[in-house]
Amino acid sequence: MPRNQQIVLDNRPRGAAVLGNFRLVVTDTPALAEGQVLVRHHYLSLDPYMRGRMNEGPSYAAAQALGEVMIGGTVGEVVESRNPQYAVGDKVLGMGGWQEYSVIDGKAPGALRKLGAGPFPLSYYLGAVGMPGVTAWYGLVKIIAPKAGDSVVVSAATGAVGSAFAALARARGCRVVGIAGGAEKCRYAVQELGFDACIDHQRYGNEGKALAQALGQACPQGIDGCFENVGGWILDAVMLRMNAFGRIALCGLIAGYDGAPQPLSNPALLLVKRMRIEGFIVSEHLEVWPEALKELGALAGSGRLRPRETIAQGLAAAPEAFLGLLQGRNFGKQLVQLI
Amino acid sequence: MPRNQQIVLDNRPRGAAVLGNFRLVVTDTPALAEGQVLVRHHYLSLDPYMRGRMNEGPSYAAAQALGEVMIGGTVGEVVESRNPQYAVGDKVLGMGGWQEYSVIDGKAPGALRKLGAGPFPLSYYLGAVGMPGVTAWYGLVKIIAPKAGDSVVVSAATGAVGSAFAALARARGCRVVGIAGGAEKCRYAVQELGFDACIDHQRYGNEGKALAQALGQACPQGIDGCFENVGGWILDAVMLRMNAFGRIALCGLIAGYDGAPQPLSNPALLLVKRMRIEGFIVSEHLEVWPEALKELGALAGSGRLRPRETIAQGLAAAPEAFLGLLQGRNFGKQLVQLI
Repeated sequence: MPRNQQIVLDNRPRGAAVLGNFRLVVTDTPALAEGQVLVRHHYLSLDPYMRGRMNEGPSYAAAQALGEVMIGGTVGEVVESRNPQYAVGDKVLGMGGWQEYSVIDGKAPGALRKLGAGPFPLSYYLGAVGMPGVTAWYGLVKIIAPKAGDSVVVSAATGAVGSAFAALARARGCRVVGIAGGAEKCRYAVQELGFDACIDHQRYGNEGKALAQALGQACPQGIDGCFENVGGWILDAVMLRMNAFGRIALCGLIAGYDGAPQPLSNPALLLVKRMRIEGFIVSEHLEVWPEALKELGALAGSGRLRPRETIAQGLAAAPEAFLGLLQGRNFGKQLVQLI
Repeated sequence: MPRNQQIVLDNRPRGAAVLGNFRLVVTDTPALAEGQVLVRHHYLSLDPYMRGRMNEGPSYAAAQALGEVMIGGTVGEVVESRNPQYAVGDKVLGMGGWQEYSVIDGKAPGALRKLGAGPFPLSYYLGAVGMPGVTAWYGLVKIIAPKAGDSVVVSAATGAVGSAFAALARARGCRVVGIAGGAEKCRYAVQELGFDACIDHQRYGNEGKALAQALGQACPQGIDGCFENVGGWILDAVMLRMNAFGRIALCGLIAGYDGAPQPLSNPALLLVKRMRIEGFIVSEHLEVWPEALKELGALAGSGRLRPRETIAQGLAAAPEAFLGLLQGRNFGKQLVQLI
């Protein structure tokens, strides 16, 4: 019965999330019931959606309960099993949460997925070859649906979603332009992630018109599709450069997660340019996961998708790493290594 | 060679459009060249899209040139013809503009459409059984695509588009709720146009939450589809009541036509509710017109679509009637009778 560090939601944010919203507790892992397995987590995934769960009130998912372990995706190894389908040593993906161990009902459909020994690190299953990768795939393939030669833009370009988006868009013959915060991220996007160009939004200090001008230079034929992770003034600037019949896959609005909602300044552009904007949640489209994961795994296996990771060490570091993610301080997929 | 009163765009609006933007001129109709016909207009259509054309700068259509006759749809009668396909006395629909007569090249594809003697007035071809009707059809059928039992909402409910929308939605088994300005329009919408309910937005004085509450009472199962003609705070209120996977057909943003753009206050709702919002221009979807006009004609012929019309008398009255349309002073389809 190993001791288990856990991070629970202690109280809800008022405005920006702070370290004091979280609390570290230590418990013993309970004895397993029939059908259960005990998983030791190697990596915990930190993702922007978690900020939404910290709020009360209606969202697309239930709020995180106070006093309970923060939810989150994990990869790990079965260390004890009372389920014949799982053997000690199996590598598994699950929603283990912000803790070192989780007890999982192996009979619940979809609760655990056994992972093959891919030609890439286990952590990729939380990023490029996991939920964020499938998110990029759905938005690109099902909403933007580009033709070869289209220009597509993604904000938060060096994040887990953005790097997968770039590889998927290049594989379809698109020009792919990123938006990221800082010169180093932009350099990395072009040199390592395969972006045709990447624009540093920090150079434009919330000046939408200047950012729109830079987008115009990076996309001389205009923008046909946008995968939007950020919102606010960045989305406003992208909309100024969209072509007629442009498609915007709305995946996140990180600019508005942590405080006041950010308006869309000029929705008349949606009409003038006959654009379509569509919000989606990848977990509602399970039918595409096998096809998406197959392509993402192949891209990662062949080196065409080499996502950057930022790895915090130890569970206690998770809250600070998460706040950094909300502020864009991570560089690539944000993980916490637990072992 | 009859004398022809015409209204030209004299200068562009700065902010709100005013009477001084227009100028009435009188010319002689020119002698016809081979292939041309002279049409005497019975009715001129006034439509919100014309306000966009008065501005300079990029929109979905070229700006109206200064000093030229304002564009606009017309129904009328051929009074002289040098084209064997058109005989004197033929009733025709065209884009004759804000003038009493137009000279049309009968050979240009789509320039004129001969009208049958339907079981309804000629003016309907400019409204319910014309472009506004097809606009309602496209937004409802192709974007909202409702199932029977869905709740759908339309703003500017008693206008040409709104009244057609109501008849089309009822024919599909939807609950259809209107938004209009003033108690009289709302009464008319329910008693004459077949709306299940109609909300008077003037009662809520730009208070989005109060309007959203009224929408919640009118749509106890939430809103599945919205046909948006107005935008601004009214669209914000509708979005608060939309169901997951709701569809918004964006046809007009009359709230922002005449002055500052109106933001969309909370685009995060698009994500939280996985909504789709899509702008469209009905003239880009000519493939649907025959099917749409057939249904609209049948609804009008059987009395299930009885649109209200507001008819100004004489060409000189057009500018003031148009400004009234932008301010919602019309009641139903705004026309100018010229004969």
